[in-house]
Amino acid sequence: MVLPAILRRRAVREYRKDPISSEQIEEIIKAAQFAPTARNRRAVEFIVVTDRETRTALSNALLPQEFVKEAPVIIVPVVNTKAASKPVIDLALASQNIFLQATSMGLGSIWKHVHEGEELEKVRAILGIPENFLLTNIIPIGYAEVPPPPHTDAEYDAKKIHREKW
Amino acid sequence: MVLPAILRRRAVREYRKDPISSEQIEEIIKAAQFAPTARNRRAVEFIVVTDRETRTALSNALLPQEFVKEAPVIIVPVVNTKAASKPVIDLALASQNIFLQATSMGLGSIWKHVHEGEELEKVRAILGIPENFLLTNIIPIGYAEVPPPPHTDAEYDAKKIHREKW
Repeated sequence: MVLPAILRRRAVREYRKDPISSEQIEEIIKAAQFAPTARNRRAVEFIVVTDRETRTALSNALLPQEFVKEAPVIIVPVVNTKAASKPVIDLALASQNIFLQATSMGLGSIWKHVHEGEELEKVRAILGIPENFLLTNIIPIGYAEVPPPPHTDAEYDAKKIHREKW
Repeated sequence: MVLPAILRRRAVREYRKDPISSEQIEEIIKAAQFAPTARNRRAVEFIVVTDRETRTALSNALLPQEFVKEAPVIIVPVVNTKAASKPVIDLALASQNIFLQATSMGLGSIWKHVHEGEELEKVRAILGIPENFLLTNIIPIGYAEVPPPPHTDAEYDAKKIHREKW
């Protein structure tokens, strides 16, 4: 049953400081590793940041949003562009598994976009990421200050379904 | 508990002809609609193809793989590029929810890539998709001829996790 996690998965922008265990982090990254990758290249890797100073540096490198440094853990999916077939897609598929696995463990998360250019280069420098690895986003994770309400069927939009043709 | 579905989600390349009900399709698309979208633009829509002739046309438009037309349903996620902030990422996030929801319902699925250029234009013509809607993939769905074995921890690669920095 994945639908409950899909409905409870919401962008969380306020985190409690409570730490997350190594076991929790490992379970989340395991979920991400088993996301599909284009041509099964499996070229996605993960940086786990818990250090307060590094989290603050990452937060300052991006459009500032307090929650980026408040979340106790930031997972950064990166992909080897020399090995991947569709690097941006691989990162998104892995990220979605991270969101869902975190949700199913009672944790909040969010896609914090890293824009190409200055933001990307700053994040690369802070984390020492090699030139041939790309990232599109970082994922703060932690317990939500106020767990957001799940999605409901009221939001479901049947008009976005087209039968047989457009 | 999403991990069981994540582990059981494997690319399926042989489908039984058994049909899928409208209710099953709706449940899968509901899961897709609740995937996150960049800046919450929610610009992803879905074409559901069950017509045998259309499935064959789609199959012939792409690098030929028999399973594309054998699967009883093909879901085609498309995104309004005028509304979306990160259209390719939005499509991938929605697709991953489709894979997981289908898996949790005992169904197989696969990312069948639609390459930019000739393939994309052919698919656009077959389905009548407007110019401002983009797609990256189609998703055949059905019961697997032979359900593939789930991922196991043996495949989990701890070397792809970097602590604090690269």
